[in-house]
Amino acid sequence: MVPTPDALTAAMRRALQLAALGPDRDVNPQVGCVILAADGTVVAEGWHGGSGSPHAEVVALAGLPVPLRTPEAARQLTAVVTLEPCNHTGRTGPCAIALIEAGIGAVYFAVSDSDPVAGGGADRLRAAGIPTEGGLLRAEVERFLAPWLTYRALGRPRVTLKWASSLDGRTAAADGTSQWITGPQARADVHLRRSRADAILVGTGTALADNPSLTARAADGTLLERQPIPVVVGDTVIPEEAALYAHPTPPLFYPGHDLAATLTALGSRGIRSVFVEGGPRVASALVRHGLVDEVLVYLAPVLLGGPRMALDSIGVTTIGGARRFTPVHTHTLGEDILIVAQPTAPIPNTEDN
Amino acid sequence: MVPTPDALTAAMRRALQLAALGPDRDVNPQVGCVILAADGTVVAEGWHGGSGSPHAEVVALAGLPVPLRTPEAARQLTAVVTLEPCNHTGRTGPCAIALIEAGIGAVYFAVSDSDPVAGGGADRLRAAGIPTEGGLLRAEVERFLAPWLTYRALGRPRVTLKWASSLDGRTAAADGTSQWITGPQARADVHLRRSRADAILVGTGTALADNPSLTARAADGTLLERQPIPVVVGDTVIPEEAALYAHPTPPLFYPGHDLAATLTALGSRGIRSVFVEGGPRVASALVRHGLVDEVLVYLAPVLLGGPRMALDSIGVTTIGGARRFTPVHTHTLGEDILIVAQPTAPIPNTEDN
Ligand SMILES: NC(=O)c1ccc[n+]([C@@H]2O[C@H](COP(=O)([O-])OP(=O)(O)OC[C@H]3O[C@@H](n4cnc5c(N)ncnc54)[C@H](OP(=O)(O)O)[C@@H]3O)[C@@H](O)[C@H]2O)c1
Ligand SMILES: NC(=O)c1ccc[n+]([C@@H]2O[C@H](COP(=O)([O-])OP(=O)(O)OC[C@H]3O[C@@H](n4cnc5c(N)ncnc54)[C@H](OP(=O)(O)O)[C@@H]3O)[C@@H](O)[C@H]2O)c1
Repeated sequence: MVPTPDALTAAMRRALQLAALGPDRDVNPQVGCVILAADGTVVAEGWHGGSGSPHAEVVALAGLPVPLRTPEAARQLTAVVTLEPCNHTGRTGPCAIALIEAGIGAVYFAVSDSDPVAGGGADRLRAAGIPTEGGLLRAEVERFLAPWLTYRALGRPRVTLKWASSLDGRTAAADGTSQWITGPQARADVHLRRSRADAILVGTGTALADNPSLTARAADGTLLERQPIPVVVGDTVIPEEAALYAHPTPPLFYPGHDLAATLTALGSRGIRSVFVEGGPRVASALVRHGLVDEVLVYLAPVLLGGPRMALDSIGVTTIGGARRFTPVHTHTLGEDILIVAQPTAPIPNTEDN
Repeated sequence: MVPTPDALTAAMRRALQLAALGPDRDVNPQVGCVILAADGTVVAEGWHGGSGSPHAEVVALAGLPVPLRTPEAARQLTAVVTLEPCNHTGRTGPCAIALIEAGIGAVYFAVSDSDPVAGGGADRLRAAGIPTEGGLLRAEVERFLAPWLTYRALGRPRVTLKWASSLDGRTAAADGTSQWITGPQARADVHLRRSRADAILVGTGTALADNPSLTARAADGTLLERQPIPVVVGDTVIPEEAALYAHPTPPLFYPGHDLAATLTALGSRGIRSVFVEGGPRVASALVRHGLVDEVLVYLAPVLLGGPRMALDSIGVTTIGGARRFTPVHTHTLGEDILIVAQPTAPIPNTEDN
């Protein structure tokens, strides 16, 4: 007897909540695990406390009531884990082995671990005769793990490119003024998303022209609890009086124009998500080089005309070469509209710069 | 006893259906009228058959069953009309007088007629002691009469400015190719709206660069039943081989750059709605001069970059001068998004050109 599909789904939701209790700026993913009895009751829970601490499955197994700690008793149990149990010995042994040794009866997970080293846990479990199934609540868990999954797949943080523009695609009036194109609800949404990102990135052009503080703030100007690390790319030195030096986290500077290398460097600092807020040169370079995973366009119902655009040239010459995206969602924020879109296919890196 | 609010609303809906039976390319508005007995049953109906024929109220009164054609019997009746009954003697006498003489008991209408000559019918009815109320289903009827109301208020047709652009506001790739930025559903929507418009307008720049046919077509290329009159503005002569000469209606050419005068001239031909499909110079001039009543932006989830924008300069220099619009609705068409917006306040005509 195994838990009902409803019980399994509820357990995966719970595992996702548990996962979120782990540290969110860690080189390891946030993972949660729930162990169910045959009747669907929860008998143990665990989550990963970050690099160096035991994995969620191991924590959950350790929390099993003593009578269930024999392989015979464990045969009735089902482990529900957000991520495919790992198959490699790092600072902790492979979770697949821990589950096999505990004698667990079945395993459900949401998202596969495609890593050549850590992946393969499901196969190892199956080889040990344990029914193992992936894909339960996959979309939800993928959304939660998106930054980490991007890092796993591409070796760089997940990049969100954001701009606010008029209906005719301008991000500022001709004289450069842009406060405010969008209304308070759109701006609050931006600050919330900033605060969820690990880093916020601009070019020296924006840092000098706008003197942004690069903080995530509430409507009254107070700082939100979680702040993105400010990152400035480019060679120009930003003068000492700049507002970004007052950021609670010291800014990181990446000279040069190799944005792929900058992202890799950010990734190796544990940064898994980067929120890019301009300007046009940096934004265009990221699009051109296929380094954007998500675009957020805040559209205000105004017309501006003039020369100030979100992007300049992105290496597209003819309509067939358009960079295609898939709208993920669209909703209104006051009078403004937010469009969230993701590349339809992995964006190829073009030759021209 | 008067009809219930539900009966009045149903009668106004019916009057709106009747109005639509009248000719839609006429100097006169389409108007419908329903006459109700005290218990809410319909006793007569009428609509305006166009310039020179009797008004909707007169038609309905003429259709009353004989026993109701005395002022005593008519005292029990309520007239429901889409437009405020007219107060002026044109080719027909004032409808207000016709209703008063018939002895009608009460009048409900949707939209006021603000015209200094024809307006004032409601006041005349009230002065004759007939309870008269406006505003029933006003929004719906205003939408139906929008072109005519614009003409009445501004002496020019209603102008809808349409473009299709990428998320970054480009209407074509750098080489000028733009077929297709948007998908089939968005294009079908455009053709439907073209077919509803009285005229479709482009500048000579677009006529020469794109050689458009300016017809409203079904997906298979066949012509829709109703076609907008093609209008080209500017001095450049369009060569004989141009596709627009094959339009079922001979194109109209308006040399010069005085778009306000062109619109007035179109209005005096009975054209009440103009669908503008570019290009950037004509579109920008219309916005700059406050001649746009509605903007339709079809946004495709692609990025293009480059120099081709829907608008160039519209005379806005600083963010405070942004032309503000109110989104009327936003919906998805396949993968594309259509945003319909109207000027928040009447757009002022700016000095610079
Ligand atoms: N309304 C809005 O939402 C918004 C948002 C952001 C910015 N803006 C406006 O954008 C304007 C600044 O534009 P911008 O394009 O100069 O800003 P930017 O993109 O922020 O900065 C450009 C600089 O980034 C550096 N950089 C690093 N890697 C690069 C690469 N691969 N390609 C190109 N540049 C790279 C270069 O710095 P070095 O030259 O120092 O090496 C370059 O000069 C300002 O007027 C600002 O107000 C508006
Ligand atoms: N993707 C799309 O949705 C789309 C739609 C339309 C156009 N386009 C592109 O737009 C480009 C054409 O651009 P355009 O700006 O030259 O086209 P346009 O606006 O259609 O035509 C400009 C011409 O309009 C005439 N005109 C009349 N009144 C004017 C006024 N008040 N101000 C300025 N011009 C006035 C002038 O003609 P004269 O010089 O003859 O006097 C002027 O040269 C083409 O490449 C076309 O493909 C794209």
